Amino acid sequence: MAKVKVSDFIADWLYKRGITDVFMLSGGGAIHLDEAISKHEGIRGVCIKNEATGPMMAEAYARTKGGFGVVYVTTGPGGANAVTGVTECYVDSSPVLVISGQSPINQTTKNANIPNLRSFGIQELNIIDVVKSITKYAVMITIPESILYELEKAISVATSGRMGPVWLDIPLDIQSAYVEEDNLFGFSTNKKFTDKISEDLNNAKRPLILAGQGIKNSDAVSELKRLASCLECPIILSRLGLDCLPYSNVNNMGLGGIKGTKFNKLIMGEADVVIAIGTSLSVAFAGYDLSFFNPNAKIYMVDIELAEITKVQHRLSGVVIKDAQDFLRGLLNILYAFPIRYSAERKNWFEHCLKYKEKLSTKLFVKEQNPIDIYFVAKKIDEMSKKGDILVDDAGSSYYVAGQTFSFENGVKEITSGAYASMGLSIPLSIGAAIADPKVCILTMTGDGSLETNIQELKTLSYYKLNVKLFIINNGGYISMRDHGRHVEDENTMLNIKKVADAYDIPYYLIDDYKNFDTIAAKFKDVYGPAIIEIICDSEQKLILPIC
Amino acid sequence: MAKVKVSDFIADWLYKRGITDVFMLSGGGAIHLDEAISKHEGIRGVCIKNEATGPMMAEAYARTKGGFGVVYVTTGPGGANAVTGVTECYVDSSPVLVISGQSPINQTTKNANIPNLRSFGIQELNIIDVVKSITKYAVMITIPESILYELEKAISVATSGRMGPVWLDIPLDIQSAYVEEDNLFGFSTNKKFTDKISEDLNNAKRPLILAGQGIKNSDAVSELKRLASCLECPIILSRLGLDCLPYSNVNNMGLGGIKGTKFNKLIMGEADVVIAIGTSLSVAFAGYDLSFFNPNAKIYMVDIELAEITKVQHRLSGVVIKDAQDFLRGLLNILYAFPIRYSAERKNWFEHCLKYKEKLSTKLFVKEQNPIDIYFVAKKIDEMSKKGDILVDDAGSSYYVAGQTFSFENGVKEITSGAYASMGLSIPLSIGAAIADPKVCILTMTGDGSLETNIQELKTLSYYKLNVKLFIINNGGYISMRDHGRHVEDENTMLNIKKVADAYDIPYYLIDDYKNFDTIAAKFKDVYGPAIIEIICDSEQKLILPIC
Repeated sequence: MAKVKVSDFIADWLYKRGITDVFMLSGGGAIHLDEAISKHEGIRGVCIKNEATGPMMAEAYARTKGGFGVVYVTTGPGGANAVTGVTECYVDSSPVLVISGQSPINQTTKNANIPNLRSFGIQELNIIDVVKSITKYAVMITIPESILYELEKAISVATSGRMGPVWLDIPLDIQSAYVEEDNLFGFSTNKKFTDKISEDLNNAKRPLILAGQGIKNSDAVSELKRLASCLECPIILSRLGLDCLPYSNVNNMGLGGIKGTKFNKLIMGEADVVIAIGTSLSVAFAGYDLSFFNPNAKIYMVDIELAEITKVQHRLSGVVIKDAQDFLRGLLNILYAFPIRYSAERKNWFEHCLKYKEKLSTKLFVKEQNPIDIYFVAKKIDEMSKKGDILVDDAGSSYYVAGQTFSFENGVKEITSGAYASMGLSIPLSIGAAIADPKVCILTMTGDGSLETNIQELKTLSYYKLNVKLFIINNGGYISMRDHGRHVEDENTMLNIKKVADAYDIPYYLIDDYKNFDTIAAKFKDVYGPAIIEIICDSEQKLILPIC
Repeated sequence: MAKVKVSDFIADWLYKRGITDVFMLSGGGAIHLDEAISKHEGIRGVCIKNEATGPMMAEAYARTKGGFGVVYVTTGPGGANAVTGVTECYVDSSPVLVISGQSPINQTTKNANIPNLRSFGIQELNIIDVVKSITKYAVMITIPESILYELEKAISVATSGRMGPVWLDIPLDIQSAYVEEDNLFGFSTNKKFTDKISEDLNNAKRPLILAGQGIKNSDAVSELKRLASCLECPIILSRLGLDCLPYSNVNNMGLGGIKGTKFNKLIMGEADVVIAIGTSLSVAFAGYDLSFFNPNAKIYMVDIELAEITKVQHRLSGVVIKDAQDFLRGLLNILYAFPIRYSAERKNWFEHCLKYKEKLSTKLFVKEQNPIDIYFVAKKIDEMSKKGDILVDDAGSSYYVAGQTFSFENGVKEITSGAYASMGLSIPLSIGAAIADPKVCILTMTGDGSLETNIQELKTLSYYKLNVKLFIINNGGYISMRDHGRHVEDENTMLNIKKVADAYDIPYYLIDDYKNFDTIAAKFKDVYGPAIIEIICDSEQKLILPIC
């Protein structure tokens, strides 16, 4: 019977599940794992510079390619560095598997089981204790034969229900063990759903649909469109659901929440029946205790995660714990069998919303001026994007402005952060997306402050010649943070972006006059490969705030 | 009675405990904390670029200045980023207080207590669950009046016994609360020691002292020297204890362990009575299960951490759980009262050790050649260092070579990593030391691979004009890792260091011929401020390995 080394078994199992790239920063504690990737003909090990960014890259890889993303790290600081990215995957529900190397079992603090022992083997840390609260599943493997079970379980947990990161910690002596393939035991999941169906939309006068990332994750965009046109009602989107419909879709009212469109809170406040599908109804999107809605509004919430529902359950009129597509198909079947009756009030309401959209859309407020308006930059990037392109944005003003301005026509997609908007996220997200699909063009908008946080990865961008156009808003730094108490010393803290581009061998373009935008963009937009475009923007930039 | 805002109370309490600099990356969730630092006249907020490096800087601050170091971070990703540095402080026993901002109490997942809820308020994460296994004490503050108790407890825990990091998570509504100072309640520690005294050195034929960081932490260097001269025996030092004695001290045999001096394992293997003081006897230093010693040797271990003793207890002949200075003073009192008797065997043993030192010291093996030998670089840096200077080194070959070569004459100190040697550590350590004591010169040795990991902090180095000379070993990257399975794609991954120095406005010097070292060093060594010195070294560099 064939014997196989555990580390090779893992690599092959991942490859059979569609993994062709693993984000890795190798080290002695993961030597067998790393070698298995290195010698596997179907998998490329993408060498990164700091493990912190690995899960972010894998997150974007999974979102770009489907399935899940994989990160390999080593013991101790390797795993600790990755915590930053894992929390991102956790709060944004991204299916990422982190595999860490570990000291041999008899040199682990976990195995020694001595209270207060901090580190035992070389660079040893009990990483599972650190990550268990920020992963869906995290375990140290101690039996070589359990490897199939643990891989299947980890990926099943990561990709089913509400997605999220998982972590397998594999000691050196497990990595290097040989197992008989026939002795491996597997895992099979039972998907259980608690179903509850309740709808009465016939009496609604001012219905509203809120839609989030769950729509995309369950492939329910066409069902969403059918429901909205059937009800003739507005849709407001969450940050991670924003690219599921083009802004030109008649029902789409754009982004909701504290940094949403100028008119989103008016619609939220006026609606009398709200159905939220595939969104966690976060504080930033819907207010604490759903305070952005009329206190008398009936609110229904459809989500696959009980916890997100429970946090606001006292304010809800009905709950469905279900996959968005399953729910929408069921609801549409009912509405086809018993069509919704005509209502003049509902018709007036929709026309009223359309007028808001006509008069208050962001693009009407874009200024053509110098120093350049950030909204002008976002509008230009939006217009430049073509079918298949991916838009990426970073924390701070570029995050807010992008959400209010991008229109996602022609199937343009966005990869961004939902719950956190961590500074510096845009570079690893761009790299992950470009690695997953080298054919697409990534148009990335970041600030001069965010740039610094993960500036080390510019080398990864440059080395792999990734097709990422990095638009850097130079407005004297940290503009969105000044009002929130970010303390920067003075303007000398600012980098010379041209010199940085030169140091990393990335072509550099400067746009300091809005009138030259198109001329300069013509020089780089159809040239494959990375580019840095510094844009001198208004340090007194005001953000568009929703009317309440 | 005077009312005081909690965030101002904290700043003032820290100031009264000697804190004049707080390493911070501010954000909306820590706004009151940040403002209190900003407006406090005695404390400077040092603005860093990535929270990952904050605890490393605070660690070096504490080690340079005494007392403890403080880091302020914000909610969610702010805290998550800091995990990297906190694990360093944990495994290396550094007293650092991290204070994080948090969402208002009623928007925290901890308070909501709903299983599986991942994030509630804006950028909210239950950071305490993440860090509790890598801190000595970690708690979210929920009662404003408990602030004094929690600060006193945290610092007492961090700085007493075996030192380590502590974490206070402070929700926005606690930060901004006003309290009556008279209503605050405090904390007082009871130091309990389990004492056990046992020594019989009179019968030893080949005694050996192992000494570690505990000697420095308990201010017991003079007691150590007295014991060694009293016994006429060799001392071998751990990595973090290495700078407690100059190499010229007659008893000092230099660094022990797998990357120690060429002769350290010979001495360890021959000794018959070993006293280890203030060292955890890690696997890298003493072997798994203390395998570097003769199986018949009697080994006594003196440490303040029960856990470190317990992990090897079955191999020990005696244990003392005590502060190193307390132990040494007690032992010396006994030896003064009952002087050790003359032994020809012991005298021969010491002379035998002195011959090893005479014939096998690292400096005898330094090559004068091109491409330059890394040991030559370390020797030059060592010779360049003057009283008060601080040496810093990074992971990989510079870490190993420095430990084998630096001699710490004239009170030169070293700040480096013990248990981990995380890549990229040297830049934040250098910054922290320079911020703590701007008068000293920091001589830092790093590799071209390690440089990239925290390259973003070169801006901090440059902006604050810190007196750090950063020697970058250019040997084609990751040399110490190639044999351990680090997979680098090819030489194009290497940065152009001159351009990087230019981008960060740091003076740059190139040394590509060993004969020019002194001439070029003369240009920067007495010029205050940062400098980058790129040194073209041998990509085929061999490390000196201990003889077994």
